Amino acid sequence: MANTEARGGVKTSPDLGISPVERLHALVAADMDATDKLIHERMGSAVAMIPDLAKHLIDSGGKRLRPMLTLAAAKLGAYDGHAHINLAAAVEFIHTATLLHDDVVDASTLRRGKVAANIVWGNKPSVLVGDYLFSRAFQLMVETESLTVLDILSGAAAIIAEGEVMQMKSANNLGVTEQEYLKVVKAKTAALFAAAAESGAVVSGRGGDFPAALSRYGHNLGIAFQLVDDALDYSGRQALMGKSVGDDFREAKVTLPVILAYSRADPQARHFWKRSIEAGQQSESDLERAITLVEETGAIRETMARARHYANEACSALSVLAPSEIRTALSDIADFCVERAY
Amino acid sequence: MANTEARGGVKTSPDLGISPVERLHALVAADMDATDKLIHERMGSAVAMIPDLAKHLIDSGGKRLRPMLTLAAAKLGAYDGHAHINLAAAVEFIHTATLLHDDVVDASTLRRGKVAANIVWGNKPSVLVGDYLFSRAFQLMVETESLTVLDILSGAAAIIAEGEVMQMKSANNLGVTEQEYLKVVKAKTAALFAAAAESGAVVSGRGGDFPAALSRYGHNLGIAFQLVDDALDYSGRQALMGKSVGDDFREAKVTLPVILAYSRADPQARHFWKRSIEAGQQSESDLERAITLVEETGAIRETMARARHYANEACSALSVLAPSEIRTALSDIADFCVERAY
Repeated sequence: MANTEARGGVKTSPDLGISPVERLHALVAADMDATDKLIHERMGSAVAMIPDLAKHLIDSGGKRLRPMLTLAAAKLGAYDGHAHINLAAAVEFIHTATLLHDDVVDASTLRRGKVAANIVWGNKPSVLVGDYLFSRAFQLMVETESLTVLDILSGAAAIIAEGEVMQMKSANNLGVTEQEYLKVVKAKTAALFAAAAESGAVVSGRGGDFPAALSRYGHNLGIAFQLVDDALDYSGRQALMGKSVGDDFREAKVTLPVILAYSRADPQARHFWKRSIEAGQQSESDLERAITLVEETGAIRETMARARHYANEACSALSVLAPSEIRTALSDIADFCVERAY
Repeated sequence: MANTEARGGVKTSPDLGISPVERLHALVAADMDATDKLIHERMGSAVAMIPDLAKHLIDSGGKRLRPMLTLAAAKLGAYDGHAHINLAAAVEFIHTATLLHDDVVDASTLRRGKVAANIVWGNKPSVLVGDYLFSRAFQLMVETESLTVLDILSGAAAIIAEGEVMQMKSANNLGVTEQEYLKVVKAKTAALFAAAAESGAVVSGRGGDFPAALSRYGHNLGIAFQLVDDALDYSGRQALMGKSVGDDFREAKVTLPVILAYSRADPQARHFWKRSIEAGQQSESDLERAITLVEETGAIRETMARARHYANEACSALSVLAPSEIRTALSDIADFCVERAY
């Protein structure tokens, strides 16, 4: 259950021209530029190591999907102020802080195809710079003077941390249920997607069912993203295309593909999962075997089917909105997030 | 430069009856009880490891000096609402989160005389539970609906993280100047003392020079506390009394006693400091030699003299206040913090 962007997230598909994420980016381009400028301003510090380390991750080609949701929601709400720029930057800081601490916790070596910050600088600076960015996120939020938004985002931050602890506890544990897995996904991934979209909606001042619809969109999109990400980590096709797979397997994380494959395993396969995941004893050929087992049992197909379900939920949340280019792009992003896997 | 409370902070001296910290505690006892109740409520989580780990540190006999400053300031401002309880709990959560991350960064084995959380649970939960408490602190602050207070405390949180990075970079570095050292102390310790006192003052609604006076008191008290703590870590008398000394030396932290002793060292002593601090090569008898060198050069005496200066500054900040039991207790705390060393 590596974070969505670990393997590059959404990419242009040669068949489809520009991706819907790029389309959304173009629709909020001026605001995104302002957000990027603010991000770089506020990650600064007289202590040079802080911006150096932060820049390493922030400029590493992440797609800025979360802040884009904030900007898109504000635009859908016809907002004409500046607070959404602060919120988008804050959302990216919270996300970056989480990734920095995640990589320390997981002892990751790679992030977005680059050597992870904890490897370049060590764990200590990663922990402390994460704390710094987290504090800077709150300062940005306080400047908006919106207590509602502060409430949404500080609540999300607490839920994310709770989700990370839950996830940590579920490593090496084949007793994790599908329900427990979903709880982790909702906390560690969907909460920030939901808060990012909702806070942009709230700050726009457009009331009614608008903020709740955006929150529901973000929540379901976040789940779909994480499910697809977890499926792709066991995808033989991804491996054939030269993409990195097997991160979750190597870290003995119990994601939905494993939960499903294990529940359908014959005694020999159960033994394999117990050894490789529960005992964490892995040899070189084990990843290949895991991929075969996950695919043969239909666990990948079923994980993708659930992702499809949440993507549909995300799209249906947008039905309260009048048609617009942004609505279409958001809807297409939900579809694309599932389709990219095929 | 371990955190002030590492060695028990302020204690009752048998010569003096109850300490001024205990006197202040008694003056805000009802509010402190409410704060403790709120702390225990809000550190809760359905994820059992979170309250377990948080409780380990929060119930380990820390003196709650920082939240006490918040409560005392609110009382001095004749505040009759409830927001100061939230703020006091938030301040304690920020402090606890910092200690958890500190102990991971320093690979500490002890905290307040107990085995440190990072040793009992491991580094990962310590990082994540720290994040959780930090988020909970912000939620508590948001509930007060005071943007001024949110601004003060989120600013302090960013400064603390900056101070921690600075401190980390100054380990093993005998080139650290006294000025750089003071910058670290101001950021990592004094900022939260100042924000704790100021936020209690602000929330009381009493304006004029009152909030600035409380901030100045907290700032100077924080510096004095840290200087005394850093001096005591090289105190032969402390060692004779069976107290733990030498934490900073073993971690090769360059604190004021070392800076001063090194600047006055003869060639042989310089060689000793270079080996033990810069190269980090220490043998068993080195701590004793370090203590001797620090005492012989007058470095301890001078560190304490500077602490005395900041304690006086703290007291003088209170001169804008009318006489009261709380003002006397605050003033005595500043004096006591220096006197406890003799």
